[in-house]
Amino acid sequence: MARETLVVIGAVAAGMSAASRARRRNPQLRIIVLEKGHDVSYGACGLPFYISGEVSRADDLVVYTADYFREKRDIEIRLGHEAISIEPGRKLVHALHGASQPLEIPYDKLVIATGAAPAAGIPGTNPPGVFACNDLANAIKLREFLDSRQPRRGVVVGAGYIGIEIADALAKRKIEVSVISRGERVLAGFEPDIQSQMEKAMEARGVRLKSNSTVTQITASASGEALQIHHEKGSESAEVVILATGIEPRTSLAESANIRLGPTRAIAVDDRMQTSVNGIYAAGDCAETRHLVSGKPVYFPLGTTANKMGRVAGDNAGGGNARFAGIVGTLAAKAFDLEVARTGLSTAEARAAGFHPSSTTIRSFSHAKYLGGKPLTATLLWDKSSGLLLGFQVAGEHGAAQRVDAAAVALHARMRVADLEHLDLGYAPPFAQVWEALLIAASEAIKAEKRL
Amino acid sequence: MARETLVVIGAVAAGMSAASRARRRNPQLRIIVLEKGHDVSYGACGLPFYISGEVSRADDLVVYTADYFREKRDIEIRLGHEAISIEPGRKLVHALHGASQPLEIPYDKLVIATGAAPAAGIPGTNPPGVFACNDLANAIKLREFLDSRQPRRGVVVGAGYIGIEIADALAKRKIEVSVISRGERVLAGFEPDIQSQMEKAMEARGVRLKSNSTVTQITASASGEALQIHHEKGSESAEVVILATGIEPRTSLAESANIRLGPTRAIAVDDRMQTSVNGIYAAGDCAETRHLVSGKPVYFPLGTTANKMGRVAGDNAGGGNARFAGIVGTLAAKAFDLEVARTGLSTAEARAAGFHPSSTTIRSFSHAKYLGGKPLTATLLWDKSSGLLLGFQVAGEHGAAQRVDAAAVALHARMRVADLEHLDLGYAPPFAQVWEALLIAASEAIKAEKRL
Repeated sequence: MARETLVVIGAVAAGMSAASRARRRNPQLRIIVLEKGHDVSYGACGLPFYISGEVSRADDLVVYTADYFREKRDIEIRLGHEAISIEPGRKLVHALHGASQPLEIPYDKLVIATGAAPAAGIPGTNPPGVFACNDLANAIKLREFLDSRQPRRGVVVGAGYIGIEIADALAKRKIEVSVISRGERVLAGFEPDIQSQMEKAMEARGVRLKSNSTVTQITASASGEALQIHHEKGSESAEVVILATGIEPRTSLAESANIRLGPTRAIAVDDRMQTSVNGIYAAGDCAETRHLVSGKPVYFPLGTTANKMGRVAGDNAGGGNARFAGIVGTLAAKAFDLEVARTGLSTAEARAAGFHPSSTTIRSFSHAKYLGGKPLTATLLWDKSSGLLLGFQVAGEHGAAQRVDAAAVALHARMRVADLEHLDLGYAPPFAQVWEALLIAASEAIKAEKRL
Repeated sequence: MARETLVVIGAVAAGMSAASRARRRNPQLRIIVLEKGHDVSYGACGLPFYISGEVSRADDLVVYTADYFREKRDIEIRLGHEAISIEPGRKLVHALHGASQPLEIPYDKLVIATGAAPAAGIPGTNPPGVFACNDLANAIKLREFLDSRQPRRGVVVGAGYIGIEIADALAKRKIEVSVISRGERVLAGFEPDIQSQMEKAMEARGVRLKSNSTVTQITASASGEALQIHHEKGSESAEVVILATGIEPRTSLAESANIRLGPTRAIAVDDRMQTSVNGIYAAGDCAETRHLVSGKPVYFPLGTTANKMGRVAGDNAGGGNARFAGIVGTLAAKAFDLEVARTGLSTAEARAAGFHPSSTTIRSFSHAKYLGGKPLTATLLWDKSSGLLLGFQVAGEHGAAQRVDAAAVALHARMRVADLEHLDLGYAPPFAQVWEALLIAASEAIKAEKRL
């Protein structure tokens, strides 16, 4: 019998997790990874720290090299190979490699891990000095530009967590930064008391926030060195612009094979990561998953989820029977010396999911004040009808973000707020409080519901 | 109708939590707190940091003063009042105050929060220079001794987490420290791979560990300045000795009222913190609780639990109906720049509870290596028969201890190891890993059980 072949399209988090797990599951399998770019298995979440210069070399972000996968895991990585269509009837992937004729690559099992692309950004063609920062190749270009040109002023378009992280990276390089936000607040999806903390941290570092405005055009001066960023509420000058206006799943390849997209417009998958076509799996930023709190499909592209989805897809493509139930919406970031994190649903998301959300915000400390504990702000969300925990968000200078993990587990376990008040969490003066923020917030929530 | 009176015996964590919660529950109640000492509501877990000098004033450890409770919460605190017996038939507490005749204090409801005393230590009378460190008064005496005498050599008897914290406090004062441990290892109740980390950290700071030896006698030189600590395996010289040989619940008062003790020899309480005598509650280090993993009564005296038990006792004594289900055995400490924490059962405890424990130890990092992430060691314990999570322990220089909290919640929710692998925990390079230690350990456990 001929060796079965697994083809994986995409060689970053989900793709290489899938290939690696498939190899462990099935030592006989032939595994081919097609990657249109030249970078493999890097930590995309580290890009802001490469842009700031805190991480000096791009190679430091690479977890394993292509050679490592070839030699240690017997995985054939084909760089510079762009998959252009899938033909499920003949079980073929058509790919381009340089100037040669299109290649036909047969597969028995296929994993689509094509990731995401920057959302359609600014109308018209962008002049030089405008960058996306969605992958390592773009980050390298941006970093070269920053190192060689040493711009004094920068504009970040977009105030989500990635926009904020990039704004911080520029500020660390002593660049004067303006952030243009389409919405009223930074960090969409976070609750107001947490958003305020980040806005204050940005202001304290001299970052100018232009809210409620959309960029209409970016033009260059005659010399090409000065950029003018025109937006609905005015115009900013800068020498560098970074677009962080969100990403969207790369689905054209799946669509070429009539693979079904979900309601989020990302590739629909079941809990084995199989698409609507038998034997074809999808994982990572191109696919949707299930939000375990709302029970609904969700597009929530993150490295953690991509790795898990990839591992499950690879396990099943290799003959296993793994399942990925979904996420609870956990996200963490650090910028301007402030850690922020959320898990679960926001108030708006909870309403959209049919809950009756209530919330309370408390102030606490990272650890004992007599050992220098730093202030924390935490917002707890629950459903008034059922008493179910819906979400937890935290902001603070120190030891803040990891505090959402206990709440994330509580969400996985579908705990009620009443179950949280007496959780046996760890305490010692150098890193915690006797009454941890989650417990205080739960206690306040119970009081608010007059169930004390 | 006359005002009802609540009497609380003991004014530290459990006692003042009970009094405060009873006040909130019942504004009419007369609340009297009897405290044999002169300190109120202090953070006992901070004592090692006061001894080291990191916390300069003992007052910094006081959460609220007696005057605060009197003025803001209408709680009568009677310092220097030692309860000597309880007469449940007449609902009286007999107490001594200075040289006066014994007082009779009538109660309608009673909360016993008498705490714990140092376990019977060294045979014979200890010479000056030998200290216990179980409460603020003793810590103040020790600190005065250290500040005035500036001893060069110290011996700590006992290698539990308190012994280790005190050894660290002495080492920070540049005192040469020896620790005498009755057992083979430090940190009884921790797993070997975690114990090793602490032993290495102690050795790196020049602390000498004398294992498997019991102190038989402590003698003083003629001048009284040098102490000789005789133990089974030898003899140490020092100018200061601190006894950290464990604590035992103070139950004589409860026994005077024929209140039932549990199998752990601490006061037995139900989940409303009521003792075997109606209307008499017990909370904190004098009482036992239930271990939610083993389902069995346990004596696990900690500040976090004392506060929770006190709050529940006070709520019920004030007319409420609060419940405290129990603990999952979470404990955290930091010493010698190493954070250690555990939750759940140890291998020995799990066997004693009838489980068939298996464990795996993994190495991971606190956060991205390219941002200076520090090594972590984590041990996961599970039951081979049921796949239930039994425990999780972590050691590391940075960001280690709080990592047990997610596992603690999983224990409360009675999760299986298979439920852990895909938990949606927070990740960002400055404070976490894409695959958090708990997830890696769960994955290894699943592999070990051939359920991959």
